[in-house]
Amino acid sequence: MKTELNEDVRKALSAVSDRQLSHIFLVACGGSLSIMHPGKYLLDRHALTLTSDVYNADEFICRRPRQLGEKALVILCSQTGTTKETAAAARFAREAGATTIAMTLDPKSPLASAAEVVVAYQAHYTTGAKIDAANSNYAVLYMLLSGLLAQRGDVDLVPQLLPSLSNLQHAIDKAKAFYEPSFDRYADRYRDRPVIYTTAAGANYGAAYSYAICVLMEMQWINSQAIHANEFFHGPFEVVDRSACFIALLGCDGTRRIEERARDFLLRFGDRDNVMVLDAAELDLSGLEQPFRGLFAPLIFFDVLWVFAYRLAAMRGQAMLEGRRYMKKITDY
Amino acid sequence: MKTELNEDVRKALSAVSDRQLSHIFLVACGGSLSIMHPGKYLLDRHALTLTSDVYNADEFICRRPRQLGEKALVILCSQTGTTKETAAAARFAREAGATTIAMTLDPKSPLASAAEVVVAYQAHYTTGAKIDAANSNYAVLYMLLSGLLAQRGDVDLVPQLLPSLSNLQHAIDKAKAFYEPSFDRYADRYRDRPVIYTTAAGANYGAAYSYAICVLMEMQWINSQAIHANEFFHGPFEVVDRSACFIALLGCDGTRRIEERARDFLLRFGDRDNVMVLDAAELDLSGLEQPFRGLFAPLIFFDVLWVFAYRLAAMRGQAMLEGRRYMKKITDY
Repeated sequence: MKTELNEDVRKALSAVSDRQLSHIFLVACGGSLSIMHPGKYLLDRHALTLTSDVYNADEFICRRPRQLGEKALVILCSQTGTTKETAAAARFAREAGATTIAMTLDPKSPLASAAEVVVAYQAHYTTGAKIDAANSNYAVLYMLLSGLLAQRGDVDLVPQLLPSLSNLQHAIDKAKAFYEPSFDRYADRYRDRPVIYTTAAGANYGAAYSYAICVLMEMQWINSQAIHANEFFHGPFEVVDRSACFIALLGCDGTRRIEERARDFLLRFGDRDNVMVLDAAELDLSGLEQPFRGLFAPLIFFDVLWVFAYRLAAMRGQAMLEGRRYMKKITDY
Repeated sequence: MKTELNEDVRKALSAVSDRQLSHIFLVACGGSLSIMHPGKYLLDRHALTLTSDVYNADEFICRRPRQLGEKALVILCSQTGTTKETAAAARFAREAGATTIAMTLDPKSPLASAAEVVVAYQAHYTTGAKIDAANSNYAVLYMLLSGLLAQRGDVDLVPQLLPSLSNLQHAIDKAKAFYEPSFDRYADRYRDRPVIYTTAAGANYGAAYSYAICVLMEMQWINSQAIHANEFFHGPFEVVDRSACFIALLGCDGTRRIEERARDFLLRFGDRDNVMVLDAAELDLSGLEQPFRGLFAPLIFFDVLWVFAYRLAAMRGQAMLEGRRYMKKITDY
């Protein structure tokens, strides 16, 4: 059983312990940006002395927020640490006098060099290595944010976080086993569709976003959009007909009823065979304590859907990570 | 020439003048939510004593941010004032002790009744009435936010705003006349496409979002997504081929270079005939003063694209506002 936060995280917390901080910027691009959304959800629910913003790294630089200064903490993330915009954002933030913490797989990467403090995490997507999700990007981000909130006296969620981390990988493995039998059926149905939408709210929105833009669009060239499950009713739902394909996420944070309403509409006006529902209520999450049950739901969904992506890719005959025409193939854009 | 802020705005500012405020929540749904994004852009760039968040109304309620309390100002918007989630958000915020200001066409609507202070604006989309854009949702929101920033001593942008408002409708009319000749050509090309994407950054993102979800998806049942112009390079750009259809917005705020980069990529790897570029640099915006040149660009784009939507609808044989299967036709969802 995990009894303390990761060493990198403790060092980072110690490095900032005497700093007067009032605002956190969560800054990244693409898939790494997607985890910042549930990070902000955690902060919105629990932070008293800290306000926060989530920004794409280049937007952050160009926007040049007036709150960026000595009282700002900027947490940046890039898997490889080579994302140019994110490394540039770290330099930009440091020049503005802010405290910078970089999350990356590679402590020697350009992002790591650009930031003041580095917190390493692990990933299985790109490397294929088997990891414990307790060391994943989500886990490390929540350790960092929970540690900060405890340090600032806002709330101490660490006692709920540590056991949740210990039980996380098991919950993910069980969720994969639960959904896997249905994947071939859906992959066969979804393989030739021109568009697959995802819906989610609250802590799950980032996972829906990442799946839409980094998996469906980037790796499978399938048109997509992550639709916020209430915004759905203010425009997007008009595209729903019996042929429209959706992946609907239902988590277990405070926004669950928003996600339920979208699911109910999809099952009523769409075709049930074209609406794949991933519902945290069907899973055994008993080892996770609130609020982390809700906050880790998107990681569980994303890991589960990663398996689905490979199934879909196999049926479409388009390899996953190799299925790119521009990213890492052309460099002068 | 406009010499003072609208009476409603002045009354609202007067009502909150002695309140200690630290955080602004910008809350709405769909098209009304879209204007809150440039509102936040204005605040991010210029606010010193006020931090801010933008939320879909039901997300706001379910999320129940810890910053929501007596020092919070919640600005809500709903065109008709009948959007249930937004009226509920106003009640929720008042119960939490926050100050609430409602923006709506109808000062007798449920939203107006729910909020403490009401600021009316005008719109031509739903009513067809000819209005002066100086009284539009964008204009009234900027008056409110600029007035607040001046009142708090953060910065006084009112001297730049007032002449900009006086010249706004003329700038819109000229922009429409400039783009209109190209619309039939693009409408004919785009009429049967399964997906049309929009791209934008900074102050323009909201307009790209609203066009994607409220016009293309809601009124024309065309699949879409508003892609942030830098996020574009972290996944979505992989769907680009010669047949992919885009509407690319290029404004004149600090994020312009992000939008230029997306446009350059689209023109290089897509088909120029399938990439409609709306570029503020081509327009005569000389009557608008910065930062409002950049902040009004999205309104100009949206009004221009509204004309394009009718052209597209005519060619597709699908009427605009009548082209809905669910919204205002079914009520029990």
